[in-house]
Amino acid sequence: MANSRKSRSLNREGGVAAAYERALGAILARVAVSGPALRIGIAFSGGLDSSVLLHLASRHAEVHNLALTAFHIHHGLSPNADAWMAHCAREATACGVPMLSRNVRLGDGGGRGVEEAARIARYRALGELCRETGCSLLLTAHHQDDQAETVLLQLLRGAGLPGLSGMAPFQPGHDLLGDGVALGRPLLGLRRAELEAFGSQAGLSHVTDESNADARYRRNALRQDVAPVLERHFPGFAPLVARSAGHVQSAQALLQELAEIDLAACRAADWSAPLYVPALQTLSAQRADNLLRHWLYRNRVQLPSASRLEEIRSQMLGAAGDMHPFFDFGPMTLRRIGSRLELHPRLGTPPEAPITLRWEGEAELPVPAWRGRLVLEPTDGLGISQEELRRHPLILHPRAGQERLKVAANRPSRSLKALYQEAEVAPWRRLWSPLLYLNGELVFVAGLGMDVRHAAMGDAVLLRWESD
Amino acid sequence: MANSRKSRSLNREGGVAAAYERALGAILARVAVSGPALRIGIAFSGGLDSSVLLHLASRHAEVHNLALTAFHIHHGLSPNADAWMAHCAREATACGVPMLSRNVRLGDGGGRGVEEAARIARYRALGELCRETGCSLLLTAHHQDDQAETVLLQLLRGAGLPGLSGMAPFQPGHDLLGDGVALGRPLLGLRRAELEAFGSQAGLSHVTDESNADARYRRNALRQDVAPVLERHFPGFAPLVARSAGHVQSAQALLQELAEIDLAACRAADWSAPLYVPALQTLSAQRADNLLRHWLYRNRVQLPSASRLEEIRSQMLGAAGDMHPFFDFGPMTLRRIGSRLELHPRLGTPPEAPITLRWEGEAELPVPAWRGRLVLEPTDGLGISQEELRRHPLILHPRAGQERLKVAANRPSRSLKALYQEAEVAPWRRLWSPLLYLNGELVFVAGLGMDVRHAAMGDAVLLRWESD
Repeated sequence: MANSRKSRSLNREGGVAAAYERALGAILARVAVSGPALRIGIAFSGGLDSSVLLHLASRHAEVHNLALTAFHIHHGLSPNADAWMAHCAREATACGVPMLSRNVRLGDGGGRGVEEAARIARYRALGELCRETGCSLLLTAHHQDDQAETVLLQLLRGAGLPGLSGMAPFQPGHDLLGDGVALGRPLLGLRRAELEAFGSQAGLSHVTDESNADARYRRNALRQDVAPVLERHFPGFAPLVARSAGHVQSAQALLQELAEIDLAACRAADWSAPLYVPALQTLSAQRADNLLRHWLYRNRVQLPSASRLEEIRSQMLGAAGDMHPFFDFGPMTLRRIGSRLELHPRLGTPPEAPITLRWEGEAELPVPAWRGRLVLEPTDGLGISQEELRRHPLILHPRAGQERLKVAANRPSRSLKALYQEAEVAPWRRLWSPLLYLNGELVFVAGLGMDVRHAAMGDAVLLRWESD
Repeated sequence: MANSRKSRSLNREGGVAAAYERALGAILARVAVSGPALRIGIAFSGGLDSSVLLHLASRHAEVHNLALTAFHIHHGLSPNADAWMAHCAREATACGVPMLSRNVRLGDGGGRGVEEAARIARYRALGELCRETGCSLLLTAHHQDDQAETVLLQLLRGAGLPGLSGMAPFQPGHDLLGDGVALGRPLLGLRRAELEAFGSQAGLSHVTDESNADARYRRNALRQDVAPVLERHFPGFAPLVARSAGHVQSAQALLQELAEIDLAACRAADWSAPLYVPALQTLSAQRADNLLRHWLYRNRVQLPSASRLEEIRSQMLGAAGDMHPFFDFGPMTLRRIGSRLELHPRLGTPPEAPITLRWEGEAELPVPAWRGRLVLEPTDGLGISQEELRRHPLILHPRAGQERLKVAANRPSRSLKALYQEAEVAPWRRLWSPLLYLNGELVFVAGLGMDVRHAAMGDAVLLRWESD
């Protein structure tokens, strides 16, 4: 009896190691870096899961000659944090893996509580540690029960498909980790109980985070109070929930393929290009929303809710040609300009008061308040007299509304509005185009040019406005 | 205080009625039948939810002059079932709505337990009642808490997107209801608590199904034991879960649009056409699976699991041109035939023993065992001698393997295999093509024709095989 129990345990231990190797193989096949240049980081809290991960990874790395570093994040949330760090250092040494630790201070989690703040701080610190040590892949110890919890938590907050997808076994990039660090989760197919059995068989010691028992945290509440009731009535639910997450991941990938088809139909060569509105209008509402959602995401815009997106779509696609609807998303602005939908950095309003410059022959005059600079280039032809420019202050005004400009000798003076329309200058650019006055006269408008009535021959300069 | 509480209740009652009217309006806009021809059925169990539905529907139908019928299904599962039916009849009369009831006996639920068996029997009976009374729309009383339960149950069984979508507010058709009956759920946006408050405000009496308290049933277990724990830690989770279901419904609609794009790329004019394999092979695995899943579904094939579908895809798309893989799905068979993927009714194996027919001048001889008939048409040209056909028994054999046929006077006799290949007869059709012997000689092969060595001029017939 004892023998047969032991051999089952050994089989189980072998099964966990084999599952780790398979999953890691699939991860390594997708990392851009390979061979001796690949350094792998291990997120190591000292808890059961990451202790098993470190143990498996160190045994495997030894055989396959891979370079590992363990990273321990010290939150300072628990009075035991120093003891945990010491424990982790000992364990890493025992595994023959170098360990680095980093103290983090918590932000406010963007109003989403201490749990979320800790998660954000932890990932940012791990990303920094990876970059500092040249690790292009970070492994975390998330397992199948974590996956089920994640999906349930997302469902309980009404998430869309990205949330219901749960965690991916591999992510080429991760917002919080930052540039150049891929994330792998080689234990995602294993149950917590399998890791526990492996840990006890392998004689691993680990710390227990007492905050895990605090049911104020949503995840802990789910784990402590909800999961046992679920397990009683729906035994073995975690792998099933994880299976659903896999289905949602596949669906997500397909929705992205559909968005790419529709992006091309909207005459955009890539995700950074504007969308052609008449093509967008031929799509079903859901398909237009899918494209917009992917387009905004790829342009690093914080995604709006489904109802807000619907409102945006209907205003953007329904607007008449002479309306110029816009929506601000954090640092970005979405605008309909004629038949195109554009994203550009959010600009705010330009200065209302005049700004006075003096010119003493510089090639350009920076004007930070107008987010640009006035470029002055000597010319043999028609231009603004250098003498005039030196004698008078150069005064930049915003547009008031009635200004007129004569851009060519053989054409009448015209309103700025007419000239802007003719030159197809987008309204948000018009707003950020200053007017240059010299001795009380309008001599130049950014984006439109010089007034020929003030042009001189010889010893003149051409003016040009460049935005930052 | 009392007044303000009362006015809140009244508002809530008004809110429920308004929500019902809005949802019903959206449903009626999607029903094919409209105007006086539209008859609406109400699934009326006598419980709280359907009592509220009947009450709301009858008040609304009176104002809008709609024809309603209530349907009560008598399961016989409870000793109180007769009393419930009597209660329902009284309530329907009080609402001025005619009621029909139907007794059902339970099947075994396809191995999925009494709960599922009851659901199947109930929907089938409701569909029959609708057809018998000319109702083209059936309303059920599912609400938002039911929706959340449905989605959680689907997640706990590892469902894909169709399951995670939960219930739709409108379905133009429903498998169990059968032909010609659409299903509407006008209370799907309302919480159970709102219906309870409405019911008590309106003074509605209702029955309580004591089996609802039986936690052996999955749904009851979720409602009785899991939901209260969830509500404590995640207050108001039901509308959030329902919101997620809405996101999944949208994703489902998009995946169907993608499948339609790919169907066209696979040279199929509609869902019943075969798929062109080289085009299917250019799709990503996930996209091919998405198309196959929709294609199988539209052809009423029971959907395989994700892992089985992957196996099918890799065998079907990986097969060399001379392999003829096939999979049976219930009554249907999926086959790769050259560059096409076809679905046809599952045929089984044809008879192995010879079948003897006598011909006495009939225009055709039915052969049920071979699922077809031999058609005999008099000809002035070359054919089989009528005299020979009358003199000898006609014997149908399956192919043995070495047979040869001479199909034209100026060509040598050839093996059936070579002739089938030349004529591009699919292997499954070859299997179901009998060989006709007369006086010990092969004279005709279904799908290939007559052996010219047995042809006669004058008083002859042409033979043709027609499959059922």
